[in-house]
Amino acid sequence: MTTAGFDARDVVAAKRDGRELDGPVLRAFILGYAKGEIPDYLAAAFLMAAFIRGLSDAETADITAAMIGSGVTIRLGALSRPTVDKHSTGGVSDGVTLVFAPLAAALGLAVAKLSGRGLGHTGGTLDKLESIPGLRTDLSPAELERQIEAVGCAVAGQTKDLVPADGALYALRDATATVASIPLIAASVMSKKLAVGTDLILLDVKAGSGAFMKTPEAAADLARACVRLATARGRACRAAVTDMSQPLGSAIGNALDVAEAVRLLRGEERGRLRELTVAFAQEALVRLRGEDPTAAKAAAERALDDGTAAERFGRMIRAQGGDARVVEDPWAVLPAAPVRHEVRLPAGGALASVEAEDLGRIAAALGAGRMKKGDPIDPAVGLEFFPKIGDLLDAGERVAIVHARDEAAAAGAAERVLATARLVTGPVEAPPLVHGWHGGDA
Amino acid sequence: MTTAGFDARDVVAAKRDGRELDGPVLRAFILGYAKGEIPDYLAAAFLMAAFIRGLSDAETADITAAMIGSGVTIRLGALSRPTVDKHSTGGVSDGVTLVFAPLAAALGLAVAKLSGRGLGHTGGTLDKLESIPGLRTDLSPAELERQIEAVGCAVAGQTKDLVPADGALYALRDATATVASIPLIAASVMSKKLAVGTDLILLDVKAGSGAFMKTPEAAADLARACVRLATARGRACRAAVTDMSQPLGSAIGNALDVAEAVRLLRGEERGRLRELTVAFAQEALVRLRGEDPTAAKAAAERALDDGTAAERFGRMIRAQGGDARVVEDPWAVLPAAPVRHEVRLPAGGALASVEAEDLGRIAAALGAGRMKKGDPIDPAVGLEFFPKIGDLLDAGERVAIVHARDEAAAAGAAERVLATARLVTGPVEAPPLVHGWHGGDA
Repeated sequence: MTTAGFDARDVVAAKRDGRELDGPVLRAFILGYAKGEIPDYLAAAFLMAAFIRGLSDAETADITAAMIGSGVTIRLGALSRPTVDKHSTGGVSDGVTLVFAPLAAALGLAVAKLSGRGLGHTGGTLDKLESIPGLRTDLSPAELERQIEAVGCAVAGQTKDLVPADGALYALRDATATVASIPLIAASVMSKKLAVGTDLILLDVKAGSGAFMKTPEAAADLARACVRLATARGRACRAAVTDMSQPLGSAIGNALDVAEAVRLLRGEERGRLRELTVAFAQEALVRLRGEDPTAAKAAAERALDDGTAAERFGRMIRAQGGDARVVEDPWAVLPAAPVRHEVRLPAGGALASVEAEDLGRIAAALGAGRMKKGDPIDPAVGLEFFPKIGDLLDAGERVAIVHARDEAAAAGAAERVLATARLVTGPVEAPPLVHGWHGGDA
Repeated sequence: MTTAGFDARDVVAAKRDGRELDGPVLRAFILGYAKGEIPDYLAAAFLMAAFIRGLSDAETADITAAMIGSGVTIRLGALSRPTVDKHSTGGVSDGVTLVFAPLAAALGLAVAKLSGRGLGHTGGTLDKLESIPGLRTDLSPAELERQIEAVGCAVAGQTKDLVPADGALYALRDATATVASIPLIAASVMSKKLAVGTDLILLDVKAGSGAFMKTPEAAADLARACVRLATARGRACRAAVTDMSQPLGSAIGNALDVAEAVRLLRGEERGRLRELTVAFAQEALVRLRGEDPTAAKAAAERALDDGTAAERFGRMIRAQGGDARVVEDPWAVLPAAPVRHEVRLPAGGALASVEAEDLGRIAAALGAGRMKKGDPIDPAVGLEFFPKIGDLLDAGERVAIVHARDEAAAAGAAERVLATARLVTGPVEAPPLVHGWHGGDA
């Protein structure tokens, strides 16, 4: 714990007393922890002190830099097209990435997406993709770069040697009730984005009942903190604060999400998930190609409607070893749950609110998610929840379908799904989809 | 970490957010940690949150109760005389306990003293006593009680099964920069005192450069917190805030402290160490025997001057297996250091201040103390520092003697000793010995 001129306890004591720490000290602490030289208990004390006392922008940037320096970085220097990365802070029925990657590739951009797995009530892109038979996500950095050049997009698992300090610190934060700190979240998110050399980072910071940040204001704080970290390193980053007061799409599961993504990529589904995906593609075209916003939006919508985005999805799946027939006939290849249980409203009304996090938990309890890292998931199960806030619904209307392993699980989930929706008699206004954009060019 | 209805992370999150925790929850957390069911890192996060957010009186009392409940308690129910325990928060040349125990026994009281070992710059009574050849401090509770009844006093090591949670928590606090929290210190001190069924607890809360609490105000806060914990459990406790802006006596070591204690017990030494020891004996007589303060003070001084206290010290040493000739001729039995190096002033002046903690560290560096738990100590080495703040000193005057293993260590220590003393030309007022008393009957 003590090396020449560095006592890790002094670092903890300084943060405990609210003092600002300088870069070399923070770097030594973070790297010392990553190397196992600083014990968990001391890092836990530091995290709690940082949680309560806060971290300055400079401290957050120094921690982020140390985390990036704890492992390898991926330069992506040899790509012929401008590169974009897109990251969501996690929500319910948040299938944007699955659609965005092939859509942006179809629009001439290169999408490098290193993704994580789902935890708790939020799904993970890797888990969703892996419900496609044969598909692998363990691409090496060289494979990743080759595929991006050839296909325009790749969605791969974050390798262990990319920002290893983040994995260790995140697990410790999760175990010590120190997750919900904006500087620590920003450092965790941005260290992984900044370790990959893309030309543009797009962030989707979710706000609402299904998100980690419950209010648009808190989400905006996080968005700004993330953008500052990018700016400090000379990287272009745009962050949208978007609505997660209800599921974004309708599918909450893994195979179910892929099927929904296919419907979107084939131009067969409208709604908020499509709108938001188009907004991100538009933003990427404006920032990386200098396109006019209106033209960019039209181009993105066209790529969904004319099949070019779906075609690109098929190429990406093939490149990663998956069964690309999923683009033509999803349920011919995706695993389906044995029980489909329709959920109908006992009484009508206007949908006033949805407990989106509860819907995520119900799907996770069916087997679609994991309670702790490493748990297996069931790709077939989950649920679909159709109405949006403001919709007028009739008694007896089908609002959801539970996809379960057995009737008992389905019936229990159906009852819980009904309890998440609050209906009122008067009219209800739909919440905005995008609360605002933050950041800009580097 | 999760038992029925209890998630330890929720406890940490609540304290993180400054919420007050109720008794059963705190009890489950502390006992869970003591049993090894709650990991170090989670307890470390809790300690940091408690350090920064604070603990209410009720929370501190609940933690103290849980710590007491983590092990055995010692009732001392069968003693024929009123019992008193005396505890110091730790200082430099703080030999009060060594003198107080036989003195109070000589005055007809029963002294049950479970002591700890020294750490850092403060000495430990056990270490000092064990410099007497043959003396053992590992008394069982039954042996302790038998000796107190027969001799009137015993000074023994705290057994592992008395407040085991404190040992574990203290080690973790030390490792995580969370020691200096008044509620946590009070809980640690008082759990060990309250686990032993004495009629009166006397606390010596040190304030100044040689103490943990640097100001009388901070020490008074700690004293009041300790007294409240005793009161909450119906126990009588009196706490004095006393001066530690300079060494209390002159000896800083182990055998050196025993030799000084013998001089005091034989009525051969005057000064602040004697005054404070008499003040505690007086307080005990007033509280436990209802004696008049003036008469109580005179009785205590008489017992030092007429040899009855010294005789009682000899009986205590014999009862614990030690060589009681130490009372007649200390250096016939105590280990002496091979090198005695006199420290003389290069220039005269009035002693304005002393870095008492530095003196403690110099003695520890000579081998008299330990940097970490379990380190061996050298009973023979240490130093004597004679002047007190306000004394007028002449150039060339001998102010200290370094007792060392070799000349090089002695010379280095001597130079450091001189640097601890600041002399000025004008007159300097001596600091008060006792800043104030706190608490009362149960």
